[in-house]
Amino acid sequence: MTQLSEAKKGIITPEARRVARQEGIEPEFIAEQIAKGKLVIPKNIKRDFIPQGIGEGLRTKVNANIGTSQNHYDLNEELEKLRVAVEAGAESVMDLSTGGDLNATREEIIKYSPVMIGTVPIYQAIVAYSQEDLDFKQVSADFIFSIIEKQAQQGVDFITVHCGVTLRVLELLEKEKRVGGVVSRGGAFLINWMKANQKENPLYEHYDRLLTIAKKYDVTLSLGDGMRPGAIADATDAVQIEELIILGKLHQIALEEGVQAMIEGPGHIPLDEIEMNIKLEKRLCHGAPFYVLGPLPTDIAAGYDHITSAIGGAIAAAAGADFLCYVTPAEHLRLPTVEDVREGVIAARIAAHCGDLVKGIKGAKEKDLEMSRFRKALNWKGMFKMALDPQRAQQMRKQSEAFEEEYCTMCGKFCAVRLHNISQAEKSQSKIMRKKK
Amino acid sequence: MTQLSEAKKGIITPEARRVARQEGIEPEFIAEQIAKGKLVIPKNIKRDFIPQGIGEGLRTKVNANIGTSQNHYDLNEELEKLRVAVEAGAESVMDLSTGGDLNATREEIIKYSPVMIGTVPIYQAIVAYSQEDLDFKQVSADFIFSIIEKQAQQGVDFITVHCGVTLRVLELLEKEKRVGGVVSRGGAFLINWMKANQKENPLYEHYDRLLTIAKKYDVTLSLGDGMRPGAIADATDAVQIEELIILGKLHQIALEEGVQAMIEGPGHIPLDEIEMNIKLEKRLCHGAPFYVLGPLPTDIAAGYDHITSAIGGAIAAAAGADFLCYVTPAEHLRLPTVEDVREGVIAARIAAHCGDLVKGIKGAKEKDLEMSRFRKALNWKGMFKMALDPQRAQQMRKQSEAFEEEYCTMCGKFCAVRLHNISQAEKSQSKIMRKKK
Repeated sequence: MTQLSEAKKGIITPEARRVARQEGIEPEFIAEQIAKGKLVIPKNIKRDFIPQGIGEGLRTKVNANIGTSQNHYDLNEELEKLRVAVEAGAESVMDLSTGGDLNATREEIIKYSPVMIGTVPIYQAIVAYSQEDLDFKQVSADFIFSIIEKQAQQGVDFITVHCGVTLRVLELLEKEKRVGGVVSRGGAFLINWMKANQKENPLYEHYDRLLTIAKKYDVTLSLGDGMRPGAIADATDAVQIEELIILGKLHQIALEEGVQAMIEGPGHIPLDEIEMNIKLEKRLCHGAPFYVLGPLPTDIAAGYDHITSAIGGAIAAAAGADFLCYVTPAEHLRLPTVEDVREGVIAARIAAHCGDLVKGIKGAKEKDLEMSRFRKALNWKGMFKMALDPQRAQQMRKQSEAFEEEYCTMCGKFCAVRLHNISQAEKSQSKIMRKKK
Repeated sequence: MTQLSEAKKGIITPEARRVARQEGIEPEFIAEQIAKGKLVIPKNIKRDFIPQGIGEGLRTKVNANIGTSQNHYDLNEELEKLRVAVEAGAESVMDLSTGGDLNATREEIIKYSPVMIGTVPIYQAIVAYSQEDLDFKQVSADFIFSIIEKQAQQGVDFITVHCGVTLRVLELLEKEKRVGGVVSRGGAFLINWMKANQKENPLYEHYDRLLTIAKKYDVTLSLGDGMRPGAIADATDAVQIEELIILGKLHQIALEEGVQAMIEGPGHIPLDEIEMNIKLEKRLCHGAPFYVLGPLPTDIAAGYDHITSAIGGAIAAAAGADFLCYVTPAEHLRLPTVEDVREGVIAARIAAHCGDLVKGIKGAKEKDLEMSRFRKALNWKGMFKMALDPQRAQQMRKQSEAFEEEYCTMCGKFCAVRLHNISQAEKSQSKIMRKKK
């Protein structure tokens, strides 16, 4: 039984009901959207946590990637990243570990996570045969599926599977003169595997095996974009779109089989192609939830890619993207620190909220309205309460000389809001005076 | 003689020539655009620095606001903010001081500035009569113009003048149930002045006096939006647009009189109204350069409004905004610190560049292309060189364990770029093998 198989029978699961309550939407609508493949509730049957829905009509969700690498392994640090990401408002965390004991790391992360957990199982399959350099010939399709089953058993809620990296796509890739080439780790693993073994991508060829495992544990498939552009110059090229078409077809098969699935998207995309990318996905994948990485509308902001990504993410969310994968300031430079994780989540949440405001998501506009009313009233406690990060807002104000005044040090007593309030008070007083006469 | 009066005569000034060279555009085009009122080169005749053009067809420029307040006065700190803003890439700095000796502060800032300097003269006029609380009745129109003349004499390159805050606009303001009211300091000053003195806005009524001063020193008028929305709920309302219509008319008069002018714009605007705001300005103000503050597509991100503003600024720039006023993380909370200034300028520059990429600005795409080529080659020195902030990028990478490796700690030896390079190398090797056969 999966959320999808139940929804198709018209059954409203406790998870669907919970999501409906959180979003302020009728549970029937949630179930209908799940049945249409437009909404997923990633939650492994082995796990127990407050689930979140991802898809059309719902609040835009945020994912934070954490995980060790072979250069940097510290389990406690990853658990701290998990804690900080959730505290900052991430609704999802992906464990992308490639260093240390991967099973143990994943087990701990799942154990401590109050949110959905995603992984990319191909990482573990490849890492297992990489004592010296990588040996793709050693990795059998059976081994890959055994890893996927193992992770599903552990309770992973969604898995990125780059099923669209097919021989046909590789052919296109070789014709396309890409500047950035392939920047998806999973995508690169599969390409090298396919070349080394002279075989079709097992995640595509044996998609049925994937569906069987996913169905058993209600693992949501996140159909990965191994061909996502890693350079503005490569955005929206034939390779990327061909893969998207394939993912759309695979989404339909999953839908028929009762397996929840969403689609992953780019990547590096110029600002004026972001909306088009979202609309294209919604069309080619029949409204499937869209999970984007960034997008980054420039390549040159290394060190600040949380900002770049907030620009692209906000536009994507407004255009209909359902799920934003954060990008941290460390992207393109190194593994993120705990502080990078926090900055990344906050930036992605700002983007998601800017999108929700114009998507017409229930409760979104009310937050801004409430904040603006507190601002007009110079009610600082109210402003802190409504701020996306109350602690940071309070802390910054406390650093100033006027933290006990009604105004701030930007304008002091020349505060426009204060002056306008005075002029409005005078006006209403003169109205009262006129009435008295 | 102003840049505009010369351009109207078909003369290409050294400034126009310089701007043309910087932008890689024909000097004739620069002069034509100036003559049409679509481009300004703010540079007081008393000053000597490398000028920048602002307007259609040119790279989007960035302004940083600095200046003391009555709660916080430290001239050296402001000079450090100036230095850091310019170092981070600001093409313009506005001195918005309201604390301490305003003339002396301005003189020092102008003296040390290698970029154009803007001010809001009404601040000084009002601050002069605010020993106790503010006394708007004491401030005469003559006094306001004497301050403007004084600042022009000192060498200020452009001045914000809220000429559109007219009695007619105030009437509309009182009918509009605004949530945030008035958030422009200059706007609030003028409203209170007009109410206290029961008179029309002197900057509107005696616009000819303003033009005379501006013409004498070639001070560019930045026609300020005193009615800019300070809340998402107030965006694009009748008050804002009525003021914009008036500014459009005043821009035409300035153009006839040979005075350079640009238009200031919002403010807090939801994401899906930003493009419309830019297009509206370009239509109502006949293509006049548009200088926006933000825009901020949400009200709730206090502490991170450099990010909010980067989202709105990028969309605005892409849609045709010519000049972005930065917003720092301290906005809505306190006066910015030196570090806030740096963060604010970088965020605005990211936004400007994302816009330039899609505006088709000469040289913009080439930067991203170059960066992507270095990325593909895993050439770190090249990547640092192309990064918007080379120092930050280098520093972040140095914090990682792999800073001497070809890859980074994010993926280590599983780096997608590295793997794809290997697979490509193998491919070309097998091609060579085939050829040898």
